[in-house]
Amino acid sequence: MTDTAVIHDDPSGTNNDDDAVTEHGDSGISHLPKKEAPDGKIYFSYSEIHATITSLVPQLEAFQPTLMIAIGGGGFIPARILRTQLKVPIVAVSLELYDDNTNSIRETGVQCLQWFDVSEKPGSFAQNGNVLIVDEVDDSRTTLQFCVEQVLQRCSPKRIAVAVVHNKLKVKKGVLPSHVEYFAGADVPDKWNCYPWDAAAYGRDIETHEALSRECSGLPK
Amino acid sequence: MTDTAVIHDDPSGTNNDDDAVTEHGDSGISHLPKKEAPDGKIYFSYSEIHATITSLVPQLEAFQPTLMIAIGGGGFIPARILRTQLKVPIVAVSLELYDDNTNSIRETGVQCLQWFDVSEKPGSFAQNGNVLIVDEVDDSRTTLQFCVEQVLQRCSPKRIAVAVVHNKLKVKKGVLPSHVEYFAGADVPDKWNCYPWDAAAYGRDIETHEALSRECSGLPK
Repeated sequence: MTDTAVIHDDPSGTNNDDDAVTEHGDSGISHLPKKEAPDGKIYFSYSEIHATITSLVPQLEAFQPTLMIAIGGGGFIPARILRTQLKVPIVAVSLELYDDNTNSIRETGVQCLQWFDVSEKPGSFAQNGNVLIVDEVDDSRTTLQFCVEQVLQRCSPKRIAVAVVHNKLKVKKGVLPSHVEYFAGADVPDKWNCYPWDAAAYGRDIETHEALSRECSGLPK
Repeated sequence: MTDTAVIHDDPSGTNNDDDAVTEHGDSGISHLPKKEAPDGKIYFSYSEIHATITSLVPQLEAFQPTLMIAIGGGGFIPARILRTQLKVPIVAVSLELYDDNTNSIRETGVQCLQWFDVSEKPGSFAQNGNVLIVDEVDDSRTTLQFCVEQVLQRCSPKRIAVAVVHNKLKVKKGVLPSHVEYFAGADVPDKWNCYPWDAAAYGRDIETHEALSRECSGLPK
């Protein structure tokens, strides 16, 4: 058990400037590092999220997934975006590290609120198959570690991979076994990153959020 | 059993021009009817989808949901967007009407590929609670009918509602019991509607998709 970040096969490398976000792929989305908005937060547009997660498609196709596991609710949007191109079924699991009742991280660790039936299709595709776990952001890595452990306990996959939109550049609490393949669409600094589906949580409508995202990318409002 | 469309409490009404899409809410997104792109399809941007589904928030808050059921994969994105504002847990179900193996509608009807445990939280919030079923589009209504029937068979909710981003204006095959409340963010014509997460299915990257959506809204590219 270590507190040190363990990055496996991270396609984006770990050599980025900690204050910069590097976009991958040839989406035409701004490749400039994103800067903070006047409120100190970094805003990401839907198009950027889409381009960032789909930039992983060639590598994920090479992994040949048989089943995607979307970690709810964060993994729902990237998993649905990926499905169009990967054409593999999605099952959802619900894992909760944050307790909405106490507004804090659960002291008891991650709680499993929903899993899937591994004895029936499509859950059975995890057995002796290639399981791709999808989430929005690899922050402390605690939830990802828990999900990988559950997959290993409940299923007998041939290979496991994790794909996230963003890997936050910080010391990780969770550790992934070395045989777990790791794909991050982009590395992001350890800052307050705002996703478009959460616009209302920051008091923004979606148009204002998207305008702030363009501002963070140095694009015209 | 009837083939006639049954619309319950549709906030958008059924009086729209069949060739027009009316956006609801005060998002600042174009309120003009969307026109077909040169390829005959209608393209919707992520911002429009976000604004359309969140325009339902006041009505959905009044429904006081205790649990959201996201019909996967289509319901994943709207359910995740709604969660930020409704602040209720999401469980996912996987219901498949279309058979990817035969590229056709299943003759045997909808198949249930994943359900949730109603004996444990948060699935148990369906018992004697207000269940909100979320999907992207109400097309033939077959999947929605199946989902409502499953909820009624497996749970004992106090109230059930269905929320979709788009209600396609067409004769419905499925029928919802009259006590099921119905919310559609917008009515859309029975045309080829393209969603941004499916951009690659139409051979587009996300930037081209979003530009086509602006074109359909009569906005500058």
